[in-house]
Amino acid sequence: MTAPSQTLPFTLLIDPLPADSPRGHFGDTFREVDWTAPALRVGELSAQRGDGVFETLGVVDGHPQAVAAHLARLATSAAICELPAPNEVQWRAAIAYAVERLPEQGEIVLKLVYSRGVDSGPAPTAWLHATAAPDFGTVRASGIRAVTLNRGYPHGVAEQTPWLLMGAKTLSYAVNMAALREAHRRGADDAIFLTHDGFVLEGPTSTVVLRAGGVFVSPAPSGAILHGTTQQSVFEHLQAAGERTEYRDVTADELRAADAVWLLSSVRLAVHVIELDGRPFPAVPELTRAFNAALLARTS
Amino acid sequence: MTAPSQTLPFTLLIDPLPADSPRGHFGDTFREVDWTAPALRVGELSAQRGDGVFETLGVVDGHPQAVAAHLARLATSAAICELPAPNEVQWRAAIAYAVERLPEQGEIVLKLVYSRGVDSGPAPTAWLHATAAPDFGTVRASGIRAVTLNRGYPHGVAEQTPWLLMGAKTLSYAVNMAALREAHRRGADDAIFLTHDGFVLEGPTSTVVLRAGGVFVSPAPSGAILHGTTQQSVFEHLQAAGERTEYRDVTADELRAADAVWLLSSVRLAVHVIELDGRPFPAVPELTRAFNAALLARTS
Repeated sequence: MTAPSQTLPFTLLIDPLPADSPRGHFGDTFREVDWTAPALRVGELSAQRGDGVFETLGVVDGHPQAVAAHLARLATSAAICELPAPNEVQWRAAIAYAVERLPEQGEIVLKLVYSRGVDSGPAPTAWLHATAAPDFGTVRASGIRAVTLNRGYPHGVAEQTPWLLMGAKTLSYAVNMAALREAHRRGADDAIFLTHDGFVLEGPTSTVVLRAGGVFVSPAPSGAILHGTTQQSVFEHLQAAGERTEYRDVTADELRAADAVWLLSSVRLAVHVIELDGRPFPAVPELTRAFNAALLARTS
Repeated sequence: MTAPSQTLPFTLLIDPLPADSPRGHFGDTFREVDWTAPALRVGELSAQRGDGVFETLGVVDGHPQAVAAHLARLATSAAICELPAPNEVQWRAAIAYAVERLPEQGEIVLKLVYSRGVDSGPAPTAWLHATAAPDFGTVRASGIRAVTLNRGYPHGVAEQTPWLLMGAKTLSYAVNMAALREAHRRGADDAIFLTHDGFVLEGPTSTVVLRAGGVFVSPAPSGAILHGTTQQSVFEHLQAAGERTEYRDVTADELRAADAVWLLSSVRLAVHVIELDGRPFPAVPELTRAFNAALLARTS
């Protein structure tokens, strides 16, 4: 067994096998590379066209979080983008291979990338890249300021237009990054996308959950909304505590009238909104604390 | 002077200088690399998030085409994406450096990529990648089958939502590629995007021009439509021949009722539509021939 590298960033190139490969050992399909060295060709369609899919998962004290949910979504994203189905067993093995070599304590970001490969090339390319998570302790306690931004699409369009890939977590993420810059320009920390006709979608890198009338609500995953892995964990936690949870359409007006709003994501975890579109917003920090305690205690 | 490499692909990594750099010689900012070797780090935001901008230009018998228009659009795209302004003189020098080393005959695709750089890195990264153009002789003569696809956005939304980056040619091109796959699935060769409410936008990799009532019309460049470099050359050609050209809103019904429709792009150049949404479409192949003769004769 290789000694843990204990250093970050850590990069693993993966030679992706077909989903139906009968192999059970994958060691020779993994190659550790120095993260500062070039590893991708300029012909990479990830780099040329944002053509591929990804997942970002957290590793907490040696436990990769919500692996099954992330790999299920990776497979969904790949199917929407008509990429070959990823080999789940190989990806699980890659995550395990990495985790064995990562620091055993602390919070780590594990990014899985599955690209269409090199232009005119024979096969997808794949890699895993681990970095130290930023310290989100403060923001988990103090909350964030959010702004709503129009995502341009009317409600229900994504379901009629699968080529817009709204249900896939693709590498074409420039709009998500631009939305965060717009939020910062408006003096906020994060954004919540609305449809053109005023329904709540999701954050550029997060899932929205609100509490209204004693029920915890998340906009229904759909052609336009990714099913949040962290939101699923929070709903499980709430259900176990006897709380009511619901997926349904949420209007911007309902968002603004909610008792509390959270943005959930894999590494920052749960943060509550303390300001929405420039106005103070009610929050329940003790619930955020409970969500994060539950999330950080996950061992799978 | 270096001997021409005369081989393709040809890759040049560029160390991008600020736009206001006073330098006049750029040789030490260019580095030729073997296109089969890794050249990019996995931390590249181009590969991780499609976060960057690009241009694709044609080189015909040693003449790079419409360089000024492409570099102007690269600068516009960079501004929309809040990237540092590209150094136009350096990019011109990079193109010249490459062209000196490329085969002197034939049609070549020159792709310019300007990425936000490595995650948390200090500066953008840039490269130029030259490949042999596919043989488009047949399709220029025979035309293409096109389908209209809903781009999801209502008319006029892009102008209100600059964070959707619709006016920038970004590396987040997965939707454009998915639209081409959808066109192929429908038995066509290419797509024409419409707004959700039925206005003509552009092709995934081309500009639309139609002839209606004796006037050559292209949908007005806007927050949602890139200004086509090849379309600009064709309009100049038409104006020089005394024809009327116009930019204006075009509805899907007007598109379907047109005398003829062309898709214009930098490397395939002009192709006429012979089938639209499964129905035979009128074409004027002799005009396509004239357009392509004029385009191929450009020396700048």
